[in-house]
Amino acid sequence: MSNLGGDAVCQVAVVVKNIEQAAQAYARVFNQPVPEPRLTGPEAETHIRYKGQPTEGRAKLAFFKFGNLSVELIEPVGGPSTWQEHLDTRGEGVHHIAFRVPDMEESLAHLNAQGIPAVQRGDFKGGSYAYCDSTKDLKVVLELLASDKK
Amino acid sequence: MSNLGGDAVCQVAVVVKNIEQAAQAYARVFNQPVPEPRLTGPEAETHIRYKGQPTEGRAKLAFFKFGNLSVELIEPVGGPSTWQEHLDTRGEGVHHIAFRVPDMEESLAHLNAQGIPAVQRGDFKGGSYAYCDSTKDLKVVLELLASDKK
Repeated sequence: MSNLGGDAVCQVAVVVKNIEQAAQAYARVFNQPVPEPRLTGPEAETHIRYKGQPTEGRAKLAFFKFGNLSVELIEPVGGPSTWQEHLDTRGEGVHHIAFRVPDMEESLAHLNAQGIPAVQRGDFKGGSYAYCDSTKDLKVVLELLASDKK
Repeated sequence: MSNLGGDAVCQVAVVVKNIEQAAQAYARVFNQPVPEPRLTGPEAETHIRYKGQPTEGRAKLAFFKFGNLSVELIEPVGGPSTWQEHLDTRGEGVHHIAFRVPDMEESLAHLNAQGIPAVQRGDFKGGSYAYCDSTKDLKVVLELLASDKK
């Protein structure tokens, strides 16, 4: 990616039906403490847009750290989202690989020019994210993560 | 995992139908050179076992490096394998997350005790691998990679 550097992969995310159950399994297998899942904020806070529209879609998230990389568990709840769509059409499994990018709009423009559109965007405390539907070409969704701090 | 340390994740692997096409797409999106796919060795060389039996199953592989992590593209060819099974039952997409382990047998015993069996094993130049079917619990296959060098 034009502004996507060497060690920018930071996350592999797995969509699951029951995050408490999955988190317990990961904790057991990797000898880590069971993380407390947290719910993403409401639309008023995250400005979530799915296929260009606001959505009630939210998710419960839990993270396991492996050095610089984290495995993110995602249980979709509450409404339409790329997470729910994955669960409905492909079932449980890896949903995306996330990359840190220094300039969200520049990276989105680069992907758009390759025919890879953003399907969901939103904000979180300290930054913003975009999921880009690269499944046709790359067989996996890309997530771009940008920090508010420049 | 009992002997699976902090920064041991080293690979995310994606099963594809056409590795040349997928490799070109990854190269384009990430501004990297197109890697030349290479074919895994024959059974006589790799001692591949799939569900406990020798198999003619092989694969074409191509790698993209992102710092310490690589994305591996896999196109199954030639016979039964966990790669072919994934393509047949789940289609293209992420097949496994790979972890480096210092002691293959110890890690396999740990996973076995958790009800996670090895489904495919084999050797490559300099080491050995095992795929463990953790999809029920972790929703993704784990690959263990061990080096011959102790």
